[in-house]
Amino acid sequence: MSQSPLLLQLIEALRCLPGVGPKSAQRMAFHLLERDRKGASILSDSLQQAVDHIGHCSQCRTLSETEICGYCSDSRRNDELLCIVETPSDVLAINQAADFNGKYFVLMGHLSPLDGIGPAELGLGLLEERLKEGGVKELILATNPTVEGETTAHYISEMAAEYQVVSTRLAHGIPLGGELEYIDGGTLAHAFSGRQKLL
Amino acid sequence: MSQSPLLLQLIEALRCLPGVGPKSAQRMAFHLLERDRKGASILSDSLQQAVDHIGHCSQCRTLSETEICGYCSDSRRNDELLCIVETPSDVLAINQAADFNGKYFVLMGHLSPLDGIGPAELGLGLLEERLKEGGVKELILATNPTVEGETTAHYISEMAAEYQVVSTRLAHGIPLGGELEYIDGGTLAHAFSGRQKLL
Repeated sequence: MSQSPLLLQLIEALRCLPGVGPKSAQRMAFHLLERDRKGASILSDSLQQAVDHIGHCSQCRTLSETEICGYCSDSRRNDELLCIVETPSDVLAINQAADFNGKYFVLMGHLSPLDGIGPAELGLGLLEERLKEGGVKELILATNPTVEGETTAHYISEMAAEYQVVSTRLAHGIPLGGELEYIDGGTLAHAFSGRQKLL
Repeated sequence: MSQSPLLLQLIEALRCLPGVGPKSAQRMAFHLLERDRKGASILSDSLQQAVDHIGHCSQCRTLSETEICGYCSDSRRNDELLCIVETPSDVLAINQAADFNGKYFVLMGHLSPLDGIGPAELGLGLLEERLKEGGVKELILATNPTVEGETTAHYISEMAAEYQVVSTRLAHGIPLGGELEYIDGGTLAHAFSGRQKLL
């Protein structure tokens, strides 16, 4: 092989990125080496720093470089509302889109007994302690609308009921800008049974 | 902002990769931190090593971590054939596809006076010295079939003629597996005028 070994190593390493195959990895490697060596150095540093310092928040389990994350330590946020999500990217999505002012709890997955993911792996013990302490008035269950997500939401709502905490689930229905013609039957049925009074 | 600053820094840094926008960068960052921290560390090291050690071959100008690259130092390759390409990725492409056993010369671009890229920027002085030394019998001009690529090929072929070196250009025509109906007029005209005897 006449190709530079370091270059081949870089192309191989780039393939750990999701959605990057051999051709894209090659294009990225050549782009960085020919046109953006400074960007490559910065990326190298950022990756190492992120891997070394980012762990999980001890209260809500989201990715954080501090013991308590920025959401949990923010005193302007309402402690009485707790939004349960599956991943840290869901936190980011809700934060960018919704006018939500409460706190988060990140499961880092969903119940999936076949994969060995039970209540302990999702940190539900930590969540139960928080419910026991009181203070939380409403759990907003924002797990994904999949079979596993629904099961997880159901399990947590039963736990919440033991501590007299109200659970709510995000509304299902027609997405904004969607056309009725192209919406799947399940969503349409949900939207029908969940119809609301206009005035 | 409640989001971890190191995480935001990583998402921003990932955007230096070609074809990666804000959403992909976010997905990559979460994937690496949640599921592939080892891959992220390896990628960080590979990037730093590549940036620190990969320079250009002093003979053919391709990317190489050694003074003379693997192609130029390979004594089994034929010194009499010299293939001129625009970028190191073209070297890789030709090497993977064609049964070419000569050496390469990488321009790292094409003539483009408006962008300030003239013969000096493409290392044509280095190429001229090589032609002057003798030894090279044929220059294969494999620049891209664009206006700039054609101009560059023409310029180099005139230089080669001064030293009585034959220049050839890659054949234009219908790509394998292409359908006549969908091929652009220019290519079809080229394929017609360049038709060859079958037997």
